[in-house]
Amino acid sequence: MNSIIVSIGDELLIGQTVNTNATWMGRELNKIGVEVIEVLTISDTEKAIEDALKYAGSKVPLVLLTGGLGPTKDDITKKVFAKYFNAPLVENKVALENVKRIFEEYNLPMLPINDLQALVPSGCEMLLNKVGTAPGMWMENEEAIYVSMPGVPHEMKYLIKEEVSKRIVAKFDLPSIVHHSIMLQGLGESYVAEEISDIEDGLPAYLKLAYLPDTGMVTLRLTGRGNDEEKLKLEIKAVFDKIIERVSDHVFSDTETTIEEVIGEILRKNKQTISTAESFTSGGIASRITRISGASNYFNGSIVSYSNQVKINQLGVSESDLIEKGAANESVVKQMALGVQELMNTDFAISTSGIAGPEGGTGEVPVGTVWIGIAFPGGITTHHFNLGKGRERIVRKTILLALGLLLKQLKEGK
Amino acid sequence: MNSIIVSIGDELLIGQTVNTNATWMGRELNKIGVEVIEVLTISDTEKAIEDALKYAGSKVPLVLLTGGLGPTKDDITKKVFAKYFNAPLVENKVALENVKRIFEEYNLPMLPINDLQALVPSGCEMLLNKVGTAPGMWMENEEAIYVSMPGVPHEMKYLIKEEVSKRIVAKFDLPSIVHHSIMLQGLGESYVAEEISDIEDGLPAYLKLAYLPDTGMVTLRLTGRGNDEEKLKLEIKAVFDKIIERVSDHVFSDTETTIEEVIGEILRKNKQTISTAESFTSGGIASRITRISGASNYFNGSIVSYSNQVKINQLGVSESDLIEKGAANESVVKQMALGVQELMNTDFAISTSGIAGPEGGTGEVPVGTVWIGIAFPGGITTHHFNLGKGRERIVRKTILLALGLLLKQLKEGK
Repeated sequence: MNSIIVSIGDELLIGQTVNTNATWMGRELNKIGVEVIEVLTISDTEKAIEDALKYAGSKVPLVLLTGGLGPTKDDITKKVFAKYFNAPLVENKVALENVKRIFEEYNLPMLPINDLQALVPSGCEMLLNKVGTAPGMWMENEEAIYVSMPGVPHEMKYLIKEEVSKRIVAKFDLPSIVHHSIMLQGLGESYVAEEISDIEDGLPAYLKLAYLPDTGMVTLRLTGRGNDEEKLKLEIKAVFDKIIERVSDHVFSDTETTIEEVIGEILRKNKQTISTAESFTSGGIASRITRISGASNYFNGSIVSYSNQVKINQLGVSESDLIEKGAANESVVKQMALGVQELMNTDFAISTSGIAGPEGGTGEVPVGTVWIGIAFPGGITTHHFNLGKGRERIVRKTILLALGLLLKQLKEGK
Repeated sequence: MNSIIVSIGDELLIGQTVNTNATWMGRELNKIGVEVIEVLTISDTEKAIEDALKYAGSKVPLVLLTGGLGPTKDDITKKVFAKYFNAPLVENKVALENVKRIFEEYNLPMLPINDLQALVPSGCEMLLNKVGTAPGMWMENEEAIYVSMPGVPHEMKYLIKEEVSKRIVAKFDLPSIVHHSIMLQGLGESYVAEEISDIEDGLPAYLKLAYLPDTGMVTLRLTGRGNDEEKLKLEIKAVFDKIIERVSDHVFSDTETTIEEVIGEILRKNKQTISTAESFTSGGIASRITRISGASNYFNGSIVSYSNQVKINQLGVSESDLIEKGAANESVVKQMALGVQELMNTDFAISTSGIAGPEGGTGEVPVGTVWIGIAFPGGITTHHFNLGKGRERIVRKTILLALGLLLKQLKEGK
């Protein structure tokens, strides 16, 4: 079944807030067989919301709206909803009890405008939002179902999980949508396409292949649609088996798992540990590694050594090396990796040093210069890159490169 | 002038990729006086792209498209563009030279499908993409201007900055759009609204106030539209001066600056330094602090002490405390903060310890238990929170709370 997400809020249009709600909803809806064919992000004006209700309702049987349900004057979604469906706002007792309960829990006095949170259009099904004061609303007309939810991420997520998904599954006979991705490193998307063009040409219409290039990697995604989930999964697996055979050297993950998950699985299996000593990536690698629950089994810790003093005192980097050569060079990342490996008593260690800019570059060591060290039991490798400009890009790319280099090292079994 | 962004790509609809491109574009376009009234995210099918061109072109004079310009078979935007404008694809010599140059620079052989990257619809203005192989395309018809760009973020950014913005500014007489935000902590949005309701009611129609609640904070944004940018800025400043007077205790930033920028400014001005010792936030606080170029002037470094061994050996946390009380308690964060403060020789230090879950909670110390320590010259404060469930939410909220507590400490001049 097709759906459209309508994201309401100027903050999304002027670039103040990233629309992560739509991303999360897309993923959740796909799991139950609902396809998001469009995300329409609009301003919080009466006209924009009305137009979106009309537009989306004429295109799909399910319209999911987020945003504009707060108690303040800029929140007008509920008012427009009531007008659009010609349904006056009436107080909902259960919603009111919920608002009161929340204020009591936080030990805060209720203001008159908080009472208004318990109003919903007559004829709508109130969706109880136990984690916030704004109730969700489920409204049907001859064209479509319209579900309005708050834009606060954890409130929206609560309502989708506890109220919306269940109702959709109960009401519709939904097909299966199966996605599976593999991730490749070190081979551009056009080369991948060339290698597997006959496989791609031979795909049936209900399987769709997509290429998602990113800094230093390409994700290949196959999406299957049908009624037999198990059969779809097997078919997708068969296609990927053929693809992986062709480009096996470049595959670093043949599951939906991220690189930090793959690393975590190997370390856990081998009962090995890791630490990081990070300069300009400032804990970004540690942060990725510890996204995984249970990372404490293999991740001992990290030292972010922004200042030379920390490099010298904590990591044992030679002061004269730092003075003579600066922080962004091979000898320093080598000492950093070995230093943290010893300090944290780990099998592996990653170190980074470089010039992320925009300040700090010189003729000899320009902005974009990056050194990565990978210490393993009994040895160390160092790697040099020139990543061009853009502070955030350089940091992000270095994090990915470092994790990629570590994975390579782990796979070599050292 | 109004515009619509059309973001093309199934990865955005199925929740594989967050649409950060639209966020960035919204911000950049606003700067030059172009208003984004909608972001339409669609699938990469011929029908969806055609429908979007028709829909957006009938609504606004400027349509900006990203995505679907790669060399692989799933990239069809250019084909649809050519068909929609009835303009056959022709080879563009400058674009071809650019593709060749890029392959030479990377020392890679060109494949036949890479040649196709140099094709553009006849009659379109080719926008030279020096950082990628897919050229941008500027196409006009009687309804609107349509600009197609690659979806790879740094390529899109390059084209907006170097080609698209300049052309828009040269072609249109654009008004000014001024946004200004202030950030509040510790006061819910309904209380803020209550406090300032008369100010809000008195705003002229060309000034719009918005409330953006987030975990533990509310951002207030005023947007002004008009022809006199300086006058708008002064008016917005006057309104915020009145608002700040009412809620001064809760304002932590009265500029567009983020909390890490405010912290950075104070530390730089006072010539003071900071370090962090992080457990489950795993460098997230350090990461926020070092988002600022030049943070190395006041940020010495951090230790991520995931394992107890690191807490004991590096930070000097008492082993018996860890065994008796576990890692998530007051005595441990106190020792962590003081330990890293001494180790990194800084004026201030932040420490965190807690149970982010989903595993690791107990009856006595449930998931969501968080301790934060703030060491300052000559003292330390500790803070206890119970943040409920949700690993990512707990981490994010703790980072914000810790930065807020540090800022409070800094403002008290200690």
